[in-house]
Amino acid sequence: MPGLSNKADQMPASPIRKLVPYAEAAKQRGVTVYHLNIGQPDIETPKVVRDTLKTKDIKVIEYSHSAGFASYREGLAQYYAGFGINLSAEEIMITTGGSEALIFAFQSCFNPGDELIIPEPFYANYNGFATTANVSVKPVTASISNGFALPKIEDFEALITEKTKGILICNPGNPTGYLYSKEELEQLRDLVKKHDLFLFADEVYREFCYDGAKPFSALQLEGIDENVVLVDSVSKRYSMCGARIGALISKNKELMAAALKFGQARLSPPTLGQIAGEAALKTPQSYFDDVIEEYVERRNILVDGLNEIDGVICPKPSGAFYAIAQLPIDDADNFCQWRLEDFSHINQTIMLAPATGFYANKSLGKQQVRLAYVLNSEALRNSVECLKEALKIYPGLLKNNQVASEYQP
Amino acid sequence: MPGLSNKADQMPASPIRKLVPYAEAAKQRGVTVYHLNIGQPDIETPKVVRDTLKTKDIKVIEYSHSAGFASYREGLAQYYAGFGINLSAEEIMITTGGSEALIFAFQSCFNPGDELIIPEPFYANYNGFATTANVSVKPVTASISNGFALPKIEDFEALITEKTKGILICNPGNPTGYLYSKEELEQLRDLVKKHDLFLFADEVYREFCYDGAKPFSALQLEGIDENVVLVDSVSKRYSMCGARIGALISKNKELMAAALKFGQARLSPPTLGQIAGEAALKTPQSYFDDVIEEYVERRNILVDGLNEIDGVICPKPSGAFYAIAQLPIDDADNFCQWRLEDFSHINQTIMLAPATGFYANKSLGKQQVRLAYVLNSEALRNSVECLKEALKIYPGLLKNNQVASEYQP
Repeated sequence: MPGLSNKADQMPASPIRKLVPYAEAAKQRGVTVYHLNIGQPDIETPKVVRDTLKTKDIKVIEYSHSAGFASYREGLAQYYAGFGINLSAEEIMITTGGSEALIFAFQSCFNPGDELIIPEPFYANYNGFATTANVSVKPVTASISNGFALPKIEDFEALITEKTKGILICNPGNPTGYLYSKEELEQLRDLVKKHDLFLFADEVYREFCYDGAKPFSALQLEGIDENVVLVDSVSKRYSMCGARIGALISKNKELMAAALKFGQARLSPPTLGQIAGEAALKTPQSYFDDVIEEYVERRNILVDGLNEIDGVICPKPSGAFYAIAQLPIDDADNFCQWRLEDFSHINQTIMLAPATGFYANKSLGKQQVRLAYVLNSEALRNSVECLKEALKIYPGLLKNNQVASEYQP
Repeated sequence: MPGLSNKADQMPASPIRKLVPYAEAAKQRGVTVYHLNIGQPDIETPKVVRDTLKTKDIKVIEYSHSAGFASYREGLAQYYAGFGINLSAEEIMITTGGSEALIFAFQSCFNPGDELIIPEPFYANYNGFATTANVSVKPVTASISNGFALPKIEDFEALITEKTKGILICNPGNPTGYLYSKEELEQLRDLVKKHDLFLFADEVYREFCYDGAKPFSALQLEGIDENVVLVDSVSKRYSMCGARIGALISKNKELMAAALKFGQARLSPPTLGQIAGEAALKTPQSYFDDVIEEYVERRNILVDGLNEIDGVICPKPSGAFYAIAQLPIDDADNFCQWRLEDFSHINQTIMLAPATGFYANKSLGKQQVRLAYVLNSEALRNSVECLKEALKIYPGLLKNNQVASEYQP
């Protein structure tokens, strides 16, 4: 049998999905499993999208232009104009999800071994895209003690070598829910400018900002037009993750020309998803108002509930729909598996993502889990109860239920 | 401005799409352009697919499993059983088009610099996928004189080095339309077995075999279960290129496990496309009978018409919907551009793909073009007339309208 590639070994298995067999076994035993482990919202896709798919008469499901429908790209330019971001259709390329946008960006910018700095904890699949494109990830660690604010800019600068080609941020953040301020982004801008790096910004949770907070986009940073590479997606915005439609956006013409060549090789992004994405641009503001109200209520139930449990700390996120909680446990991976294998409370349990998968530094995140609040309020209340009960009897509890952390919620 | 990657330079621009601006200019001048340059069929997508998309009530367009819907994979296993191919659902992974299947296969099997042998002329985007995955392509040249039959097996063997990891074939072939016989495939099987190589088989045109010819799949080759990696797609089969649904298929468990990790990083293949693909499995045989009858008529109009032109030779393909013609011209790229820029016949012209883009060997294909017969009969008759007229006045005609070739149609 011929051997596989080194990458076949190096590719990380999904930290979120590896517990799936245990969850399936629990369900087979009749246990209700609350899935707080994955960012698949239960919110309905906007009616305008579903109606469009039902009424559109498509005789032939054809390829589109490799950069996506021109009309959709023009529509997206209008969408960004609503955020004060001035873009032409040529600065926008439609991709197969935000995933493909990041892969095209990495393939276009990095030679094998080039380095990318990412504040950790970060979205686990960044590791997979980096491995795919032979990019070396250098983490700079954010702290739960300040809610995962941007690490000190000196910590970034200390990691810069001659191989460093860029910095990647997710804002608002998955898995932290932290929303970077304009000031934090301007610090990054200055650093990126000083060292002539790319700034990759994953802003797929833009609409999900709470308590009056407004998102500030990397595209609004002045003076680094050639450096900023934006990754976007319809997945969370319109609760249509399965459409697999994203966008790669940059004012750097050479980069966009290179990315288009990768796009031409794969012919076109999904046509049906693009029809859905273009229709979604007509989603009324009331949809977002309702969704945000719902997420704020859920966040409060979850985060307030968690912080009432002895020894648990959970910063209240300003954006996205994730939270990271620190728990008085020995090992998050064991704890997450144990809850599915050996625990239930009134025949219910919860599935969470161990935070270890979101840290590049293998010694970190062992007492942390990521929770996605993509379930309704009642399910979230039950989930908090389950976690509370689990933390009474889990064999690997830390002594005195105390977490070694300077964080004060 | 930060520099781009070496790959950004090395990625080939699409040879098929690079003439698009000239075609657009011709249309602006009021010239009708017959597009024989791209494999986008005009055949309607099956009614069962269109009806399913219109009637299916999808509240949330969700992610699927990273390997695709289980029900769809089981349905595909049934589909292959109809060809005498025994597969389980676990041996099938749904991908975002055949393109992604090939990229996952390359990423899983090749280390940077490893070599892949491909009979040329070959589908131009194989170059793009190879560049993406740092694979080095080694062409073995097929000849128009025998209709692009499999080159001598010794020609393959002569290229094998310690870096050779596999052989890639497209069967029936794009761009040649050649259908490899069982005997030819068994020669490849023996070679692959002898040197323990992967055999990548792109069989997306399986249904399009003419004149009673039956396709023989690489999966039917005995004794190389661990070596065969099949790439499939719904794009051409059901005339739904825009669905972006393909499949990676192998009985090699390690390979499928590695490919799934790449699949998990990108989360899932398109959900709407999968709904279309699963519905397409119910396409009645009468649809294929009608489509094949239509393609045979078109092929005959095109190929017979071409062979009647002085100095033109065009082997009659047994499969797919492409033909390669050798023309009495100096340079196919110039000729293809000239027809769009400086030529029209009764205000009509044709757009063809220069064959140079389908050869890795840069000195080959200069007198050849690829024609896709994806237009109706009348358009094809007009196209032949256009080509005939163009070959009367093109400034770069070869002397005596003769082609240096031993081929006898």
